[in-house]
Amino acid sequence: MPEVVFSVDQARSMADQAVPGHNRWHPDIPPAAVVRPGQEFRVECREWTDGQIGNDDSANDVRDVDLSRCHMLSGPIAVEGAEPGDLLVVDILDLGPVPQETGPVPGQGWGYTGIFARTNGGGFLTDRFPDAYKAVWDFHGQQATSRHLPGVRFTGITHPGLFGTAPSADLLARWNARERALIATDPDRVPPLALPPLEENTLAGTLTGDALAAVAREGARTVPARENGGNHDIKNFSRGSRVFYPVHVPGALLSGGDLHFSQGDGEITFCGAIEMGGFIDFHVDLIKGGMEKYGVTTNPVFMPGDVEPRHTEFVSFIGISVDHDTDTNHYNDATLAYRNACLNAIAYLTTFGYSPEQAYLLLGAAPIEGRISGVVDIPNACCSLYLPTSIFDFDIRPGAEGPRRADRGRCATSS
Amino acid sequence: MPEVVFSVDQARSMADQAVPGHNRWHPDIPPAAVVRPGQEFRVECREWTDGQIGNDDSANDVRDVDLSRCHMLSGPIAVEGAEPGDLLVVDILDLGPVPQETGPVPGQGWGYTGIFARTNGGGFLTDRFPDAYKAVWDFHGQQATSRHLPGVRFTGITHPGLFGTAPSADLLARWNARERALIATDPDRVPPLALPPLEENTLAGTLTGDALAAVAREGARTVPARENGGNHDIKNFSRGSRVFYPVHVPGALLSGGDLHFSQGDGEITFCGAIEMGGFIDFHVDLIKGGMEKYGVTTNPVFMPGDVEPRHTEFVSFIGISVDHDTDTNHYNDATLAYRNACLNAIAYLTTFGYSPEQAYLLLGAAPIEGRISGVVDIPNACCSLYLPTSIFDFDIRPGAEGPRRADRGRCATSS
Amino acid sequence: MPEVVFSVDQARSMADQAVPGHNRWHPDIPPAAVVRPGQEFRVECREWTDGQIGNDDSANDVRDVDLSRCHMLSGPIAVEGAEPGDLLVVDILDLGPVPQETGPVPGQGWGYTGIFARTNGGGFLTDRFPDAYKAVWDFHGQQATSRHLPGVRFTGITHPGLFGTAPSADLLARWNARERALIATDPDRVPPLALPPLEENTLAGTLTGDALAAVAREGARTVPARENGGNHDIKNFSRGSRVFYPVHVPGALLSGGDLHFSQGDGEITFCGAIEMGGFIDFHVDLIKGGMEKYGVTTNPVFMPGDVEPRHTEFVSFIGISVDHDTDTNHYNDATLAYRNACLNAIAYLTTFGYSPEQAYLLLGAAPIEGRISGVVDIPNACCSLYLPTSIFDFDIRPGAEGPRRADRGRCATSS
Amino acid sequence: MPEVVFSVDQARSMADQAVPGHNRWHPDIPPAAVVRPGQEFRVECREWTDGQIGNDDSANDVRDVDLSRCHMLSGPIAVEGAEPGDLLVVDILDLGPVPQETGPVPGQGWGYTGIFARTNGGGFLTDRFPDAYKAVWDFHGQQATSRHLPGVRFTGITHPGLFGTAPSADLLARWNARERALIATDPDRVPPLALPPLEENTLAGTLTGDALAAVAREGARTVPARENGGNHDIKNFSRGSRVFYPVHVPGALLSGGDLHFSQGDGEITFCGAIEMGGFIDFHVDLIKGGMEKYGVTTNPVFMPGDVEPRHTEFVSFIGISVDHDTDTNHYNDATLAYRNACLNAIAYLTTFGYSPEQAYLLLGAAPIEGRISGVVDIPNACCSLYLPTSIFDFDIRPGAEGPRRADRGRCATSS
Repeated sequence: MPEVVFSVDQARSMADQAVPGHNRWHPDIPPAAVVRPGQEFRVECREWTDGQIGNDDSANDVRDVDLSRCHMLSGPIAVEGAEPGDLLVVDILDLGPVPQETGPVPGQGWGYTGIFARTNGGGFLTDRFPDAYKAVWDFHGQQATSRHLPGVRFTGITHPGLFGTAPSADLLARWNARERALIATDPDRVPPLALPPLEENTLAGTLTGDALAAVAREGARTVPARENGGNHDIKNFSRGSRVFYPVHVPGALLSGGDLHFSQGDGEITFCGAIEMGGFIDFHVDLIKGGMEKYGVTTNPVFMPGDVEPRHTEFVSFIGISVDHDTDTNHYNDATLAYRNACLNAIAYLTTFGYSPEQAYLLLGAAPIEGRISGVVDIPNACCSLYLPTSIFDFDIRPGAEGPRRADRGRCATSS
Repeated sequence: MPEVVFSVDQARSMADQAVPGHNRWHPDIPPAAVVRPGQEFRVECREWTDGQIGNDDSANDVRDVDLSRCHMLSGPIAVEGAEPGDLLVVDILDLGPVPQETGPVPGQGWGYTGIFARTNGGGFLTDRFPDAYKAVWDFHGQQATSRHLPGVRFTGITHPGLFGTAPSADLLARWNARERALIATDPDRVPPLALPPLEENTLAGTLTGDALAAVAREGARTVPARENGGNHDIKNFSRGSRVFYPVHVPGALLSGGDLHFSQGDGEITFCGAIEMGGFIDFHVDLIKGGMEKYGVTTNPVFMPGDVEPRHTEFVSFIGISVDHDTDTNHYNDATLAYRNACLNAIAYLTTFGYSPEQAYLLLGAAPIEGRISGVVDIPNACCSLYLPTSIFDFDIRPGAEGPRRADRGRCATSS
Repeated sequence: MPEVVFSVDQARSMADQAVPGHNRWHPDIPPAAVVRPGQEFRVECREWTDGQIGNDDSANDVRDVDLSRCHMLSGPIAVEGAEPGDLLVVDILDLGPVPQETGPVPGQGWGYTGIFARTNGGGFLTDRFPDAYKAVWDFHGQQATSRHLPGVRFTGITHPGLFGTAPSADLLARWNARERALIATDPDRVPPLALPPLEENTLAGTLTGDALAAVAREGARTVPARENGGNHDIKNFSRGSRVFYPVHVPGALLSGGDLHFSQGDGEITFCGAIEMGGFIDFHVDLIKGGMEKYGVTTNPVFMPGDVEPRHTEFVSFIGISVDHDTDTNHYNDATLAYRNACLNAIAYLTTFGYSPEQAYLLLGAAPIEGRISGVVDIPNACCSLYLPTSIFDFDIRPGAEGPRRADRGRCATSS
Repeated sequence: MPEVVFSVDQARSMADQAVPGHNRWHPDIPPAAVVRPGQEFRVECREWTDGQIGNDDSANDVRDVDLSRCHMLSGPIAVEGAEPGDLLVVDILDLGPVPQETGPVPGQGWGYTGIFARTNGGGFLTDRFPDAYKAVWDFHGQQATSRHLPGVRFTGITHPGLFGTAPSADLLARWNARERALIATDPDRVPPLALPPLEENTLAGTLTGDALAAVAREGARTVPARENGGNHDIKNFSRGSRVFYPVHVPGALLSGGDLHFSQGDGEITFCGAIEMGGFIDFHVDLIKGGMEKYGVTTNPVFMPGDVEPRHTEFVSFIGISVDHDTDTNHYNDATLAYRNACLNAIAYLTTFGYSPEQAYLLLGAAPIEGRISGVVDIPNACCSLYLPTSIFDFDIRPGAEGPRRADRGRCATSS
């Protein structure tokens, strides 16, 4: 096992760790550890809400989650010799839930998927699913099952939802400007268009006083992916993958967390992955001047690993950029097309006896693939969603005899 | 070999075939053939432009293509006993270029990828690439190479870009209404937001006179995918796949064409696949009442085949929904996110010596995967693009030594 | 389509073709065609028995097959510039059954698998299965089904069973010497230990008279694989694969045939593949002096293609080198271990209702994998056999409820 | 993490654990733990030699290893309700090296591959490689590298080499009888044909006195696979696999160990895997009467998992059953054919600069596939060996320019 450079006691909040992590992006958050190029090291992580969600049958905790504390990140890790313009090469050697422990915190043998309430975060299909729901998953080695989703068992493609380097002060300022401009177009929208800096519950490592206050005022929220990496929620950042992060500040300042036991493309319920705390083992290196060498000006480049679970049979769903409720055509809108593919998959699964909420939770957590199939056939973007048949213990393929409807239980709901 | 129920002489235009096909969607186009459930049969196809593009080093033909004739489809094939509300089960048993022939028509041993000019069709990145370009590909069994893209060789995931059932009169009317409403929001846009019915060059099988005129007036253009299937451009409709099409009219009336030797997800240059004529072998069956049984109200459902070419190593690119030229943030826009992933891939490939146009052509034709990675991390949708490393005869992985830049030739340009 | 350099009229015997092929290995058989390095070309092939087996429900033809005429090969093809010591690089661009034809000859829309009678060829399990049996397969694009094996459908991994270069006179003499020495250890064995040269029914291209008589006297039989390649029966020589053949004579003299629509590892019924005539498209090149450069002194080296059908779920069987009938232990005998794995698979399949003969035919033809798992754990070699579950239309996985036994029909038997 | 039902302190010998394991197969070894059907549990394991091999650059420890102590197994685990005739369903949920530890024992961050000396165990190619050699591997998450094999890095397909149920007294007696009969055919052979019971160093859990003496006299050695499972060395028993073991005694009495970080098919150097101690997590269940239900009379049946590392490009080698040194033909001998495939691979790799010993070690440890390709083409069995190209950091594909020879270091040798 490589050296632990950022350790977490899962019985405590991130704020109460020996060396706390952080929950905003800001270049002034001091490094929690320093590593060398070529070094292998372990980072321990809290689940992204810092442990607000329980292993029970009520979704009230999802409904009431305090998002001002999220995502709770481990780091920053400074890399010796890293300078702006370099590419930071990060190998994900291993990751998983909290080793050797069972307990009440996500990652201690279990995880969860949540549908956030429209009034508190929302999700991809929040118009159809405005309330909070939850499914709890039990881990069996690399496989997961849920009492809230009977009939389903699959191997997780375990990955970190969120890792990134620190932004420079200039880059941070640009983020805040462009996101505030977007919010200003509809400032009262529920859910909001974007999340501006929020002083409440800001954690910035060991910073206190004025330094902390500055981070709280200026620090970017962690929800979106940006030029530093961040909350990609790319399920293929799994074991064996290699990520090339742009370096924007001396030392690179790598931070992250939001580990997922599994996730479908899109993470469509917002908290759609199987969320957990745990550990991640890295190897880091540098490509000096790599951003210019390889023409990298915005997002990281990466190479996925070679141990993703294999699936060969899928029932697949298609969506196009039409609002079918109103028969309104949108122009080449891949978001809408994927939304329709998801709705089509949900409608299909309900014919087997799942509730729409169960189907929605399943599509967030299971290893589905979401593909951009056509984005040139105007006016209709076309997206497709691939649902592996082998994750079900019954046959979900269409046949002349019709779907095998059964009692499929129920997911956790809010009261 | 199964019986040929729709035959094509590749030396002639579709209009001059013994039984012509059609280039609009309309329920009144009479069946060219009738098949039974359980039957296997072959359909021969013209390349989608009906042979307007040549095997040469000029893109003038792409620049000047007459789109009023496109897509040139084979069919309709009536299926005995099919009724509205059924699902038409279509197995794609085999497909390929024109067998046993070499010649001047796409599919006769070769195919092409085109970037359409902004003023005549455009493409996904038409703002960056307003002019016409072309790459010609030679077929070597299941593999393709191009003199316009040296250093690249890959196995095609051969598929039909476009197949579908006929719309009912009511469905057709709804298409026309919603697309005209979209066009009306910006009627002078170049390229247009959508394509309304166009009488010029309408072909409707054996129809003539008033019947033809009605189809010409009302028939939907074939460019987008819609509720009948249509121009999905889903590369995974390959050998061994099974598609479940909604049936909207008695007999189902299956038509299609636009065969592709290969295509990347998104078909980003508009004519981004490797376009060809050829043949496709089907087996059909019916699930009576299948639409209601399986909750299918809009698009087809499908199951991909098991012989897609395998790739295990990718260099992958990420895009988010920010316009980086102007630092403008868009809200959860997967189309923009995928556009940025494509632009990032193009920028990367140019560091190896390809021109941007070559890189764009390559991403349209090669077996890249385009995934919707995150669509909940507001405000930034996150899409990713997976480029298999093995299609190149040089190493495209990032490394400390930087990219191996070389003379990579040039693609066909317009004069 | 590439130029046909060796053509076959499937209505005629190989002996009656315009340019006949051959059925013995000998350096003096004259080239039927000459190709250049870098050339792509097509070779047409007869089914290996030259059409002795019919599409019917009797195995009498298998029982009575005349093996003196087998294998009927296409070629030789001379490659300009090839010299002894080179490696001949052969790309298998494409192959398949007889295009565009249905008819009575294997490859014309159908093929067969045979269990040979012990007294006429035998097979891997001939002690258990001394009689002749047959299954006829229908082709559906890349998939096959058999009326003699209901409940099974799979994608074929189409490949040539047999291709090779001509032996030098010296190499041929060594083959004859070593095989005659083996036969001499038990000359009356049924089936024989090996097959010596046989004058009867020798075909040697256009040779006649004394030249033909010399080939008939000395020519090696085509049954085994040897240093020139030959009858490898390696199912992974599929589309997209590249083989590096040792060159033993000027011009290399490439010959082959014995096309298979599918085959399981081991081809255990002797005629265990799905046998067919058809075509194969090649590209050839040379590595000058390649044998010494790469240390190749005996067999070819090859690289499999990238479009083998994918399977991810298998029921797998194990065998060890013990004769369980007599409880006799053999030393590290992988042949016996694989034999036991096959017998274990057959016993398993019969619990679902197949006859042992059907199960044996299935394991010869279906895409099973046979692996050498342990050959160091004395005294027991351990081999394993992987049977894909998805080729069955019922569930063959072990479960608490026991196997789903049903009437599975019957295969063709001899009278 | 599931409950640990068999724990190991890696700082102590297996004999000195709180509850010791065992190193012989015998029905009278008392259970170390009892589990229920449906239970998930962890078993901790010592490396198979009980820690005799060190992380250094000398192979003297391999040369001098005391094999009387091997394999050191964890267990037996009794399963409630298991009776003879049942199938014990064993899910391998997870396994890996010793968690959270680095240290001097194999599995503490490292493992090794050994070539055993001919006079002390030998290996598959012991005639060519009579001396002892060793390669030490470092673990990087799921990947391994070796200072003794520079230029190589691969993902391990981690698996247990050895697990099985206890034999009944009757079955044990049959084993001893048949193996003694084999030994008697050549009792002085070096290495021996098989290993009879050996009293020296017998460990039988908590047994002492007469009970221990009986096990020592009668207990079967653990080297071969037999009807109880045992030392299969099937690399595909990886995470997510399910094994159905025959039950021969009440409680089934599951035991095992010999964990491998990786292994090639055949484990050709005898100690050819990457050997390690560690943990394995199981879920067990029963199919009552399953042996008869599914026709299982000898070996276990299994289903491999879905997370084996993916490889798509291989350089493959072929062997036939000819002794090429003496030009002697053997009859359909798959062991010899695979031996030749291995020798051909070794000869090939040496042209790149590896020593033959390094190449041999590599083929034992790397994820190569060994296939039985043809076992009916008399007299030559044909086996093939698939070497993934991506495990090398240089190009090993054959090309016109010849192999890229370089200094590839050296493996550990004996003095």
